[in-house]
Amino acid sequence: MDNGKSRLEAFSDGVLAIIITIMVLEMKVPNGDDLSALRPLVPVFLSYVLSFIYIGIYWNNHHHMLLLTQRVSGSVLWANLHLLFWVSLIPFATGWMGENHFAVAPTALYGLPLLMAAVAFWLLQRAIMATQGAESLLAIALGHNYRGKLSLVLYAMAIPLAFFQQWIAGAIYALVALMWLVPDRRIERALASQSESHDAGLQNRWHRPRDG
Amino acid sequence: MDNGKSRLEAFSDGVLAIIITIMVLEMKVPNGDDLSALRPLVPVFLSYVLSFIYIGIYWNNHHHMLLLTQRVSGSVLWANLHLLFWVSLIPFATGWMGENHFAVAPTALYGLPLLMAAVAFWLLQRAIMATQGAESLLAIALGHNYRGKLSLVLYAMAIPLAFFQQWIAGAIYALVALMWLVPDRRIERALASQSESHDAGLQNRWHRPRDG
Amino acid sequence: MDNGKSRLEAFSDGVLAIIITIMVLEMKVPNGDDLSALRPLVPVFLSYVLSFIYIGIYWNNHHHMLLLTQRVSGSVLWANLHLLFWVSLIPFATGWMGENHFAVAPTALYGLPLLMAAVAFWLLQRAIMATQGAESLLAIALGHNYRGKLSLVLYAMAIPLAFFQQWIAGAIYALVALMWLVPDRRIERALASQSESHDAGLQNRWHRPRDG
Amino acid sequence: MDNGKSRLEAFSDGVLAIIITIMVLEMKVPNGDDLSALRPLVPVFLSYVLSFIYIGIYWNNHHHMLLLTQRVSGSVLWANLHLLFWVSLIPFATGWMGENHFAVAPTALYGLPLLMAAVAFWLLQRAIMATQGAESLLAIALGHNYRGKLSLVLYAMAIPLAFFQQWIAGAIYALVALMWLVPDRRIERALASQSESHDAGLQNRWHRPRDG
Repeated sequence: MDNGKSRLEAFSDGVLAIIITIMVLEMKVPNGDDLSALRPLVPVFLSYVLSFIYIGIYWNNHHHMLLLTQRVSGSVLWANLHLLFWVSLIPFATGWMGENHFAVAPTALYGLPLLMAAVAFWLLQRAIMATQGAESLLAIALGHNYRGKLSLVLYAMAIPLAFFQQWIAGAIYALVALMWLVPDRRIERALASQSESHDAGLQNRWHRPRDG
Repeated sequence: MDNGKSRLEAFSDGVLAIIITIMVLEMKVPNGDDLSALRPLVPVFLSYVLSFIYIGIYWNNHHHMLLLTQRVSGSVLWANLHLLFWVSLIPFATGWMGENHFAVAPTALYGLPLLMAAVAFWLLQRAIMATQGAESLLAIALGHNYRGKLSLVLYAMAIPLAFFQQWIAGAIYALVALMWLVPDRRIERALASQSESHDAGLQNRWHRPRDG
Repeated sequence: MDNGKSRLEAFSDGVLAIIITIMVLEMKVPNGDDLSALRPLVPVFLSYVLSFIYIGIYWNNHHHMLLLTQRVSGSVLWANLHLLFWVSLIPFATGWMGENHFAVAPTALYGLPLLMAAVAFWLLQRAIMATQGAESLLAIALGHNYRGKLSLVLYAMAIPLAFFQQWIAGAIYALVALMWLVPDRRIERALASQSESHDAGLQNRWHRPRDG
Repeated sequence: MDNGKSRLEAFSDGVLAIIITIMVLEMKVPNGDDLSALRPLVPVFLSYVLSFIYIGIYWNNHHHMLLLTQRVSGSVLWANLHLLFWVSLIPFATGWMGENHFAVAPTALYGLPLLMAAVAFWLLQRAIMATQGAESLLAIALGHNYRGKLSLVLYAMAIPLAFFQQWIAGAIYALVALMWLVPDRRIERALASQSESHDAGLQNRWHRPRDG
């Protein structure tokens, strides 16, 4: 019955699958036929790995959020397209950073689609919550809150910092990716114990399984 | 049971997802590594944004129309492929317009796949209505009527106008996109109040929710 | 329950959607910004149209055959991949023919993936029939028989004929595409009336609707 | 209900469909218009065939494993992305090997994504088994054991052997592909009779049909 949601998922899956895959096209087949011909590709490869992880994280988070979504509205469809737009710029930013061996400007610019995609993900979350009513989704919205907000702050820091020391920006990008890769439960328990005094009433939700 | 429809959706989602994503491949990674190297890409980026929105609009409208479609026939399959054909030419037209910084001929030509896709969408609508019987789908057909017809007229105007002042054509393309981005309800209520004297019997359908 | 079939369809839809779309990447954005810059693209465009129609036909026929398929086996999966392999070579053949303005060898070679895809489709049909038992699918197998066999013969003729007069091969390719575009019912009724004396017992199936 | 699994399948299908198709883009349209212009493409074509088969095998095995999977967890999602990452490098390795006419280093390197993808497939299998409990999936895990383990050993042998005689590595790659193409039942019966003394209790499962 809720056809709208399944097509939204299918279209998003398609776009994310293409984005994650076309990045590999930036790794142009080198001219030489010995292993040293691969050396200039090392930074391209590293930026591919980083971006693959980022898009994997977006697919993962998108997947979890949609699992808890019952219906989609026109504004959800557009908020979703807005998210896909910024994610679609990651391959370009990846290619520019990789081919210039993590030079200053490309490394700063790499943070921009990441920052905007994080904003877009937050807007999508809000659009879904507006459609659903507050009770069920509010839970995951808050659950992803700490990491989501922290990511925003870190991206916003990384972009200007790249102009001083680009390796700091690179480290921040890697750190944020790592933060999302660590299984939910451990981080969430840690955060929950830290925030106990702050908001005790929400705590028992941390122990609920995520993947229904 | 109605397998035909779900595969039509899946195939269309796939094609539209690829079209919307391969446009970003036109934004070739620049050679320099400072921000000024991005300057020549600005018109390419702008035309990418415009085309992303257009294809988003087509996906959105296709999605809504199919939501109200019960079954598909051979002629619906071909009308759908015909639509996808014209939409598939948008990336080419986008690339030509962007790389030539909105020169006259590319800006005029950009209107051609938009015009033909609008015609193809209208033909698809007719093919679906012929398959379903008139009652349920006639509603959405009429509901999308005003904007659909207006778009056709505006595209047909923009193409010759580009040869006089290409920025007029550009403005028209942006205007049509904007017109479709405004949430249905507001435009529809406005149109409904305008058309009250013209067709009072259809009015109460404007307030029905769209996304089932 | 019959998960195998739906994933086979999803994968095939994905591959066909990509194949039909990447062909447009052969239409490289021209350097000039006036309409005459498009002139060298005309044969590329024409071969794109032809191949778009061919892949549309394959998607359509694949779709209809799978609608009548209940279950898939390992050999069906591989027969399907074999079909997709030959179809995946159509964009290459299209690009070579288009960029060389329908020269002799490229026009001959264009027939090869078409011929092999037709053979592969026939093998897939056989693999599905072996899995299902003969009664239900035999019907469509016979129904598509005339056009399928005729296509094989015509492709096999077009390839050598291209070395004498390449426009004959081109005309044959267009003719076969046209033959598949004509709605099933008309051709089938025509064929049915011709084959009445030959096989009267099967005739009433021609009037059955195809797209359930 | 178990939405997680169907989206995992859809995303994987999308990525694998794109990977299998973009390899054909490495077969660049040649400049000449006679058949001899195709000669330099022969090794590119051969490596395309080999990689097409490999990715077909991965899709096939992925498909079968997921058929027997009831639910997915966060670690399954990441194990799946890890598999797709290594498979996504096959087109690059294919292009390098094909364009250098099976030179030493590219032929050795070609084994690396194959080896890592085989490891990733094994890790995915483990992640799924950890989610499901041991009984149902253990069966297929063991069923694919012999070929999976043998493939790992053969890839690990092929990589260093390529530096002595690259045709040995090429032969091993072709052999492994062939080993997976042979229908399950025959190999499995052969292996089952060999392992009768080793593990008689599991034997009757070899005769069960695979594709439900």
